[in-house]
Amino acid sequence: MRLAVIGAGAVGTAVVDLAADFGHTVTAFADSQSAVVDPGGIDASAALNAKRTDGVVGDAAPSEALSADYDVLVEATPTTLGDAQPGFGHVQTALERDRHVVLANKGPIAERYAEIRALEAESAGTVRFGATVGGAMPVISTIEDFGPERISAMRGVLNGTANFVLTRMGAEGLDYEHVLAEAQDLGVAEADPSFDVDGTDAALKGVIVANVLDPDGEYTLADAEVEGIEDLPGSMLELAREDGRTIRLIVEFADGQVRVGPRLVPEHAALAPAGTRNAVQLETEHAGQLSVSGRGAGGTETASAVLSDVERIQP
Amino acid sequence: MRLAVIGAGAVGTAVVDLAADFGHTVTAFADSQSAVVDPGGIDASAALNAKRTDGVVGDAAPSEALSADYDVLVEATPTTLGDAQPGFGHVQTALERDRHVVLANKGPIAERYAEIRALEAESAGTVRFGATVGGAMPVISTIEDFGPERISAMRGVLNGTANFVLTRMGAEGLDYEHVLAEAQDLGVAEADPSFDVDGTDAALKGVIVANVLDPDGEYTLADAEVEGIEDLPGSMLELAREDGRTIRLIVEFADGQVRVGPRLVPEHAALAPAGTRNAVQLETEHAGQLSVSGRGAGGTETASAVLSDVERIQP
Repeated sequence: MRLAVIGAGAVGTAVVDLAADFGHTVTAFADSQSAVVDPGGIDASAALNAKRTDGVVGDAAPSEALSADYDVLVEATPTTLGDAQPGFGHVQTALERDRHVVLANKGPIAERYAEIRALEAESAGTVRFGATVGGAMPVISTIEDFGPERISAMRGVLNGTANFVLTRMGAEGLDYEHVLAEAQDLGVAEADPSFDVDGTDAALKGVIVANVLDPDGEYTLADAEVEGIEDLPGSMLELAREDGRTIRLIVEFADGQVRVGPRLVPEHAALAPAGTRNAVQLETEHAGQLSVSGRGAGGTETASAVLSDVERIQP
Repeated sequence: MRLAVIGAGAVGTAVVDLAADFGHTVTAFADSQSAVVDPGGIDASAALNAKRTDGVVGDAAPSEALSADYDVLVEATPTTLGDAQPGFGHVQTALERDRHVVLANKGPIAERYAEIRALEAESAGTVRFGATVGGAMPVISTIEDFGPERISAMRGVLNGTANFVLTRMGAEGLDYEHVLAEAQDLGVAEADPSFDVDGTDAALKGVIVANVLDPDGEYTLADAEVEGIEDLPGSMLELAREDGRTIRLIVEFADGQVRVGPRLVPEHAALAPAGTRNAVQLETEHAGQLSVSGRGAGGTETASAVLSDVERIQP
């Protein structure tokens, strides 16, 4: 398929880099300032190189990528809240042109799910967003395969940064500030880690799962109860450990409510993955509890989820 | 879709029981002695009741189910080795009639994969068999979504009976004979548990995964190196535990070889699930190690996997 990749961060660049491996052609690629468009397929290494050296992907204007020839728009711009712009606008443009859309950007699916589904219903294109929850972990695809109506609840560790911080606090008896600084040095936490440690990122994923499990619920971030880990004293983790337990930032969707917060879990439970790993448990009607774990983020990991979503679209 | 369900064991009866919930109609249902056929949909509770009380599902001959009107043949007869009959013949008949096939029976996929794929290539029908590996755990579907060429190895605990026995031996310091008798009392082990404890069942699942990951390999059970748990002394588990480890019956496919045998694993590792739970790890090219765990067997669980496979077939 021909892909237009919008966004040139870790995920967008990895999609451009891997697309040919998956048998697809990138016909357009844009960051916020520039674009490169070629109906025959862009020169991926030249564009990635230009991005690295000059900070732009090509000579064209970003809008030209949106109006280019493509089958699937890959929306990989940064997640924004509220109106979820400019990602929402990109999705809308593609669907109005009867094109398919695969999102890595959580904003439009978490904040404007009902509108996205309404646009999709009017379009010949379909919308997929498996990469927004748990990177390459098969969370959304497993829910689809089971049928959302046969899954009653989801619980998960869906933020690798927060999980890394909690793992280190628990293992070393260090306090939050110390471990966060270490995580930033290691590149595990961003310079501004607010959305990771205050629970927003996990909540967005919980809202996306809620929208899939309960499509009439029209959940947004505003519906989630969210508590982060910033104020968690190191002593809490020590107390937990003495009891054979630990603390994880758990996102839950059950009984029509999305909740995020630090929770006590058994030390070796499926919901106590170590380091940056993520884990998800689904409560199914006919098959009990199903767990999935893996790397929940990362450019290449998430790009591979995006490309799996592209495969799932019937050409 | 209209289903013909062949086999009236735990899985076949659960498929008949659940089909309507999933929006499908059972038009034929057979055990080895009898069948019930109705193009408008059989009376599921009457057939299941007849099976329980009289040992037969209806008044028709089993062959009538194979020639009935249906879209998908559900092959749920017991797994047989070698020529994999009668399951293989059922699949062949359906494909020659251009019907789809969903298998819960491991035999044809493990022992005659190349022939099944050749029959499928000549047919308008497609073959799916996600239920043969890990029940409702998304193992085969995740491999398909990633693309088999992007997964380099699989390791798993894929036999719940053997895992239950090892879990109990490890936790209680009991020996094999004692725990096996207990498992039989609990209904976790069958009266003849040979295939579970000698590694055959796990090996069949490993061979199926091998055939998916390396379609030109034409693997059969004869290609697997298989060792069971029957001769494992309880003292081995004790020794492992003193070292923070335990023993699990691990099936592995890597470097073109299927291997099954008792292996030392860290006590709380993803590959050391407790009791009858199963677990699978996939080594992916772009997304690191991915783990899935859940109930790997059970009539309802496996039936739900069969019905998910039915959903995946494009009507």
